[in-house]
Amino acid sequence: MSFYDASVPAFLQILGSLSGILAKAEAHCAAKNIQPDVLLSARLYPDMLPLSKQIQLACDFSAKGCARLAHVDVPSTPDTEKTFGELRQRLANTIDYIKKFTPAQFEGGNSKEVTFPIGADKTLTLKGQEFLNRFAFPNFYFHASIAHGILRHNGVEIGKRDFLGVA
Amino acid sequence: MSFYDASVPAFLQILGSLSGILAKAEAHCAAKNIQPDVLLSARLYPDMLPLSKQIQLACDFSAKGCARLAHVDVPSTPDTEKTFGELRQRLANTIDYIKKFTPAQFEGGNSKEVTFPIGADKTLTLKGQEFLNRFAFPNFYFHASIAHGILRHNGVEIGKRDFLGVA
Repeated sequence: MSFYDASVPAFLQILGSLSGILAKAEAHCAAKNIQPDVLLSARLYPDMLPLSKQIQLACDFSAKGCARLAHVDVPSTPDTEKTFGELRQRLANTIDYIKKFTPAQFEGGNSKEVTFPIGADKTLTLKGQEFLNRFAFPNFYFHASIAHGILRHNGVEIGKRDFLGVA
Repeated sequence: MSFYDASVPAFLQILGSLSGILAKAEAHCAAKNIQPDVLLSARLYPDMLPLSKQIQLACDFSAKGCARLAHVDVPSTPDTEKTFGELRQRLANTIDYIKKFTPAQFEGGNSKEVTFPIGADKTLTLKGQEFLNRFAFPNFYFHASIAHGILRHNGVEIGKRDFLGVA
């Protein structure tokens, strides 16, 4: 089994579905005369991150996750997006970036060690498979799911099929 | 790389973290004089599922997912839980069930086909790895994340570290 197959397609599926969800959210704003920024800055609770940041983090955990698993330079992308269109472009750029990886780059990546930052001045070292299971996947899916939850909570008509990317 | 390593530990981590989150939610109810059922029946939106069902679905997608990947009988568990304690027991039972699988049972499971129900009267057939990427993981993480989001939204003091199970 290929470690590439165990990671890259999973990220791509949800990044694509997030783009579809944002398109529906933008259409919802237009139809209901809602300022887009109301949804882009919406949070489930005051100490949680807003929708725009949830999308940016889903992009980061997937792109950086793949880079660490393939042992190439980790990309740094400033969080400048202020509109639905810009966030969809960020997702498109992330998808393009991840699609460029090849199965060969992931070969042996499951058992090779990955050292990554946790918090401000600490790092953790895990084998690639553990890094994926314990860090990259749960963080990625968490921010993607909370983005979906924020939009549902605000009345955007999407369902779990939109999250899975099969709607 | 072992297909067991790519699936079982990921499920176990989050099932364990959900148990911890429910313990904090129950303590929050006691401290703030909130009837537990208020949180157990809380939803992010009227057409979304309540907290208790989010937990039950996380249990189902992980337990049934492992059964399908190992090609053993798929367990059927009635959703009878009505308290935090009963939901934590459901999680504990699910963890025990998943812990009994062995790496040998998952060998070759990535390329072996899995046929599973989608909706009321349709099935889909995918290779084990695709089933995990496209169905089992995103559904599992979705319900776990939304459970966390419901509790955050209702003021329970948990963070992403609780979701990751490292708090």
